[in-house]
Amino acid sequence: MVKINENFLKLEKNYLFINIAKKVNAFKAANPDAALIRMGIGDVTLPLAPVVVEAMKKGADEMGVKETFKGYEDSGAGYDFLKNAIADYYKSFGADVSADEIRVNDGAKSDCGNIVDIFGDDNVVLITDPAYPVYVDSNRMSGRKVIFADSNEENGFAAMPDDSVHADLIYLCSPNNPTGSVYTKEQLAEWVAYAKRHESIIIFDAAYEAFITDPALPRSIFQIEGAKECAIEMCSLSKTAGFTGVRCGYTVVPEALKVKASDGTEVSIAQLWGRRQGTKFNGVSYPVQCGAAAVFTEEGQKQIKENIRYYQENAKIIAETMESLGIKYTGGVNSPYIWFKCPDGMGSWEFFDKMLAEIAVVGTPGEGFGKNGDGWFRLTAFGDRDNTIEAMRRFKEMLSK
Amino acid sequence: MVKINENFLKLEKNYLFINIAKKVNAFKAANPDAALIRMGIGDVTLPLAPVVVEAMKKGADEMGVKETFKGYEDSGAGYDFLKNAIADYYKSFGADVSADEIRVNDGAKSDCGNIVDIFGDDNVVLITDPAYPVYVDSNRMSGRKVIFADSNEENGFAAMPDDSVHADLIYLCSPNNPTGSVYTKEQLAEWVAYAKRHESIIIFDAAYEAFITDPALPRSIFQIEGAKECAIEMCSLSKTAGFTGVRCGYTVVPEALKVKASDGTEVSIAQLWGRRQGTKFNGVSYPVQCGAAAVFTEEGQKQIKENIRYYQENAKIIAETMESLGIKYTGGVNSPYIWFKCPDGMGSWEFFDKMLAEIAVVGTPGEGFGKNGDGWFRLTAFGDRDNTIEAMRRFKEMLSK
Repeated sequence: MVKINENFLKLEKNYLFINIAKKVNAFKAANPDAALIRMGIGDVTLPLAPVVVEAMKKGADEMGVKETFKGYEDSGAGYDFLKNAIADYYKSFGADVSADEIRVNDGAKSDCGNIVDIFGDDNVVLITDPAYPVYVDSNRMSGRKVIFADSNEENGFAAMPDDSVHADLIYLCSPNNPTGSVYTKEQLAEWVAYAKRHESIIIFDAAYEAFITDPALPRSIFQIEGAKECAIEMCSLSKTAGFTGVRCGYTVVPEALKVKASDGTEVSIAQLWGRRQGTKFNGVSYPVQCGAAAVFTEEGQKQIKENIRYYQENAKIIAETMESLGIKYTGGVNSPYIWFKCPDGMGSWEFFDKMLAEIAVVGTPGEGFGKNGDGWFRLTAFGDRDNTIEAMRRFKEMLSK
Repeated sequence: MVKINENFLKLEKNYLFINIAKKVNAFKAANPDAALIRMGIGDVTLPLAPVVVEAMKKGADEMGVKETFKGYEDSGAGYDFLKNAIADYYKSFGADVSADEIRVNDGAKSDCGNIVDIFGDDNVVLITDPAYPVYVDSNRMSGRKVIFADSNEENGFAAMPDDSVHADLIYLCSPNNPTGSVYTKEQLAEWVAYAKRHESIIIFDAAYEAFITDPALPRSIFQIEGAKECAIEMCSLSKTAGFTGVRCGYTVVPEALKVKASDGTEVSIAQLWGRRQGTKFNGVSYPVQCGAAAVFTEEGQKQIKENIRYYQENAKIIAETMESLGIKYTGGVNSPYIWFKCPDGMGSWEFFDKMLAEIAVVGTPGEGFGKNGDGWFRLTAFGDRDNTIEAMRRFKEMLSK
């Protein structure tokens, strides 16, 4: 008789955003005329930059002509034109990443979930709490032991390593989803030092790096000395260039990252990952890769930075609202997220229900990201300007009643 | 210390097609002027159908306008417009599949590799030999026991079930890669009956269904009564519509497919798979889905069928060459593959080397697909017409020496 993977039965029944969608749908059914404003799921709202659209169309046209048609990509790791552009982008902020260390993917979520395939199920996994649910779920699906490092009000929602706790795999996200906090170079250096002492690997999620405006803050873990011997980095064009519906990201596995197998053989993590992807993935759509490469051109950077500035201005509007109401928050600068403390000691789902019912604004309850999220709440700056202003007007009104 | 998944160390070091690429590159370096003809990797050569290109470009344009921009897809399982089109396509040849049972993906290889995540590692996996290497590798990566059902000259390279051997998961591919053999409805019904007796699940790879011309042959396992209670089907637009570089496929998990967990709970396989994909996948690029939907329009079907006929004519040319030389083969009709017995009792890699060295034609050694492939060889009909004719001219010349 076929046996299912019973680890699945131990997972939360539904994914956070599906629960939110259900509550929102019920509200809409009961209040068909309510002017709902969505600041929950971290999805972008501005259209793709014109250079990206043109590049995708050109890529599609090439696919319609025999001489320029592209079938399977030889390596499945991404075309050189895109990997070289990404490597140059890394160099622009001081991270030395070579094109050969990059694998292009259909979005960071896939690699973030799939990377665990190359590691044994007996590793201890450390995840900061609160965190993006994929880190926890993808490890629990393989039955791995997950432990948590607390990110909380006391440490500014930036958990730091503790040598009395051993971990083999460590998930870090900076700028952080959901808390908007950003690790300094010194803080990341402490994590790198911990990973070296414990012979662990850091999986670094840099999906929000493009929102960093402070040049002193690291945009890649590879700006930290020694990180190439102990870290994998995942990044995405979803938030950088509005690719949430286009689907393209990239993972950097440094050549220097090696691990000893139980028989003492030295194993290249990049080779393992290449073997995994070579077996279970066949590369990213050619027109999508053309669009992604356009992001890294001079004109592309100009166009996407305009969009990022638009979202940063939204973040500022939300942060100023929190300031004016005396509500504690993190994020809002160097991040598209604002993470605030629910007023009057409310629980985070309780506050979610209140906001939805009273002002028809959808946010994300902090509890959905882990226990330290209880009593906290996430709003995103990825909305429309007018909606963001209107939502904050209603928010102020609700809390001044 | 971080532990790797040591199952990876037990895999063949390199993927079949990487080994071939290495030999071909070495040949090219030594013979820069040789007119190489590639009939090895099953990649298409005709450009995308015009309706597909136009639909992708229209999709890209929509992404550049705020009002029609698409971000994350709610379900990540594919837009209704595409799932409905696929469901209608199934109905057109008599398989009753509803849109809700379909999940769209970035190519059948991904789902084929990832589906194993939802099954326990203690399942016994039965794979026909020879077979597409992804079935074996993706299961060995999780440490599952893999057993083989022999497809050989005696049974026309169409392995049949044997009740004295128990299997929990069964991989079938029809029309078969690499042998080109096609199961009849009666043969598939025997496999369905076996799966029901053994409470196993069949993973049915229908990637080559569009090449079936004989209306009596099943294009989907769901044309067989009872299959919805014991089978998952994977299909792809790669070979149907030349999507090898566009990346789009679909997996059907019937609602009726349920399994008992160890505590007796009945578990829906579609729900497990949805939970897996919801965690580790974020949907297919919107412009790609637009292009895929165009394949299923009336004009789209007309255009892609022209391309399929072109490849079918190539297959006929190759098959006739084998006939004329008295070489035993399977496939060539209802399939883009021709699977033939190497002349003079040669081994398959030996024949590969001979063809490359003497006539600069690249094929795929049967041994790369399993032990029953030794002494057999695969050629694909996906090449250019002129190249196919020229390759067969050289092939005849080589063997008449």
